[in-house]
Amino acid sequence: MAFEIDEQRFSNTMEEQASIGGTDNGGLHRLALSDADKDVRDWFLDAMEAEGLDVRIDEMGNMFGRRSGTDPTAAPVLLGSHLDSQPYGGIYDGALGVVAALELVRSLNDEEIETTRPIEIVNWTNEEGSRFQPAMQGSGVWAGELDLETEYAKTDDTGTTVEEELERIGYKGPEPAEPPEEYDSSLELHIEQGPKLDDTGKDVGVVSGIVGLSWGAVTFEGEAEHTGTTPMQGRQDSLVAAADLITAVRRLPSRLGDRTVGSVGHVDVAPNSINIVPETTTVTWGIRDPNDSTVERGREQVIAEAEAAANREGVEFEWEDRARSSSIRFPDRPVQAIRDASNSLGYDAMDVFSGAVHDAAHVAKVCDTAMVFAVSEDGKSHTEDEFTSWEDCYSAANTLANAGLTLAE
Amino acid sequence: MAFEIDEQRFSNTMEEQASIGGTDNGGLHRLALSDADKDVRDWFLDAMEAEGLDVRIDEMGNMFGRRSGTDPTAAPVLLGSHLDSQPYGGIYDGALGVVAALELVRSLNDEEIETTRPIEIVNWTNEEGSRFQPAMQGSGVWAGELDLETEYAKTDDTGTTVEEELERIGYKGPEPAEPPEEYDSSLELHIEQGPKLDDTGKDVGVVSGIVGLSWGAVTFEGEAEHTGTTPMQGRQDSLVAAADLITAVRRLPSRLGDRTVGSVGHVDVAPNSINIVPETTTVTWGIRDPNDSTVERGREQVIAEAEAAANREGVEFEWEDRARSSSIRFPDRPVQAIRDASNSLGYDAMDVFSGAVHDAAHVAKVCDTAMVFAVSEDGKSHTEDEFTSWEDCYSAANTLANAGLTLAE
Repeated sequence: MAFEIDEQRFSNTMEEQASIGGTDNGGLHRLALSDADKDVRDWFLDAMEAEGLDVRIDEMGNMFGRRSGTDPTAAPVLLGSHLDSQPYGGIYDGALGVVAALELVRSLNDEEIETTRPIEIVNWTNEEGSRFQPAMQGSGVWAGELDLETEYAKTDDTGTTVEEELERIGYKGPEPAEPPEEYDSSLELHIEQGPKLDDTGKDVGVVSGIVGLSWGAVTFEGEAEHTGTTPMQGRQDSLVAAADLITAVRRLPSRLGDRTVGSVGHVDVAPNSINIVPETTTVTWGIRDPNDSTVERGREQVIAEAEAAANREGVEFEWEDRARSSSIRFPDRPVQAIRDASNSLGYDAMDVFSGAVHDAAHVAKVCDTAMVFAVSEDGKSHTEDEFTSWEDCYSAANTLANAGLTLAE
Repeated sequence: MAFEIDEQRFSNTMEEQASIGGTDNGGLHRLALSDADKDVRDWFLDAMEAEGLDVRIDEMGNMFGRRSGTDPTAAPVLLGSHLDSQPYGGIYDGALGVVAALELVRSLNDEEIETTRPIEIVNWTNEEGSRFQPAMQGSGVWAGELDLETEYAKTDDTGTTVEEELERIGYKGPEPAEPPEEYDSSLELHIEQGPKLDDTGKDVGVVSGIVGLSWGAVTFEGEAEHTGTTPMQGRQDSLVAAADLITAVRRLPSRLGDRTVGSVGHVDVAPNSINIVPETTTVTWGIRDPNDSTVERGREQVIAEAEAAANREGVEFEWEDRARSSSIRFPDRPVQAIRDASNSLGYDAMDVFSGAVHDAAHVAKVCDTAMVFAVSEDGKSHTEDEFTSWEDCYSAANTLANAGLTLAE
């Protein structure tokens, strides 16, 4: 018989958190380390303390609350996600994962259920990367993938540093930003941010891994000339070469694999005047695939296409890598725990690969990790229009709860 | 025997004007109605008064200086160009035309040469359109093509109006911004802003007309989605459609005519983030040709290409015209006067069509008008690197002088 968290309190708690930094359009404006982030952290801290959890705040502002297990020597199980949002994001995103973990603890306390292993719930600092780059900053430092001092020095658009803001809002904690001991496992619950579960009518997603990605920038350098007086044959138009590359990137995934995605999301043209042939155009592209060798082949083809486009238009080109991350295949033990949990609850679940990167990618370096995805209507995310029904939220939360209980015995 | 202006004083005067608003890189920062523009206007006013010219400043700040003719009833000949510059422009551009006209008057005074018709020299307000749009604002109002009150209300980036700046610098004159009487003819001297004269080793250009142009904007509207989680087949990427159109515009001129030029100079992408499929992309394109029906055919083909690109990518599109101007063929009388002048001076001249629009396009509505082009090295203009040798400046100035004298009899 599967465990179920308190349904009414769960949706109430979701609404409570959504009111902190909530927007008029039903979304969230809760940028990392902002006043709204401080408010939701205070709310989360009070909630953890009210449940008698052993609370730790680390130097990066990551917030942990531990519920003891019956075996004092057993490694804990970590459950949660993040409470910060995009500039105008949705109310589900990562907050759903933090609330689900909190509600599991509350329901366990209500029913006086004990676990062998400690269960620890977590809110990671700055998952979104909207105000301070990179994204997944808190979990990155905690897992040893990012350097604390380097990340402290990162600034927002106004030049304010991460460290200054952590101090200002009172969340530069005393604990080292690192695992205090060995962890048994970790589960993260997040909305899918893609349409696969919604398109196929599933109740919940069992995430078996995260795709690898390669991001890069290509800059084409031509000649700024008068658009009216310069004959066509003498032109070196950086924007034409960039356009050539953009359409090439659009075609690339269909040559590489059925799960490959790729696009150019950012273009910067100078001088960007109707009257002047574009001198310099920079495009930023990204390629993702579950298979790292496919990503690498895609990256090489983007560079080859950029060179061909530059030659055709007679312009110079330069390229640089902006980000590269290997794909992750989650270990079978936590993935199977999630699959079993959804089965025991009678949900129609599907194994999916995550096309987006999550805190779980960092945490996977520390312990056995996997993820639960909640259905997201039309795959919308990072927008105030993001929507997951309470039913789908509840299915995902119960899946996390039961998988967590299995891992904690 | 052709007339020649004073060569040494001419280059000295060019250097004098270039020192007002001059940049460290040898260019000009003399935006319309700025302090530097006021300074060069004061300098030009003093120079005209020192030559005993009858000076008029009109409501748009256009500056005229008239040297009387021997026939008090004869319609005058107008000579000049503009003294304002791009943000970082060259020292030749239109200033060469104003200085050449001034030097003609000085040399005529020196040699006590009389003309039948009055010769009037002119500095038009805001030809560049860099600070206040549109370009050719002063001549446009004067010729009745633009409305005075509408242009007075135009603002720069800080919200300051044209009228406020004209008042501030003391150049909102008392005269109506319109021709005070009938003019016999008008000649403008300007650098070519293109490479044809330099490429063919000519001394001077006889401008027989100005190309027609069509400018427009196309906006593609797709869906903003996560670049990692949205399958390729579900995407509606506005930037891909825009790229498709940009390459189509690059191919268009070669289908239309050997003097057709066309390009996309401006792109605006939203949200312009590496992680989000571009929702909205606007491109601004321009097509020019000496033949208006070719321009119109080009415009129709751009719209057809935009529709095809939108259909291919499954996005919506909207288009709007941004500017349209008919080509101008200058009347034979002033063009022949320029051709004869360059011949009599022994220069190797070439008839050219102007690919850029000039004040002469407006003035042509008022009286018989033509233009002289000075050679511009590599066709560079609107840049501090713009260069015309003193020899080429002098050839163009003497051509203007002799053509002006012919028209003034």
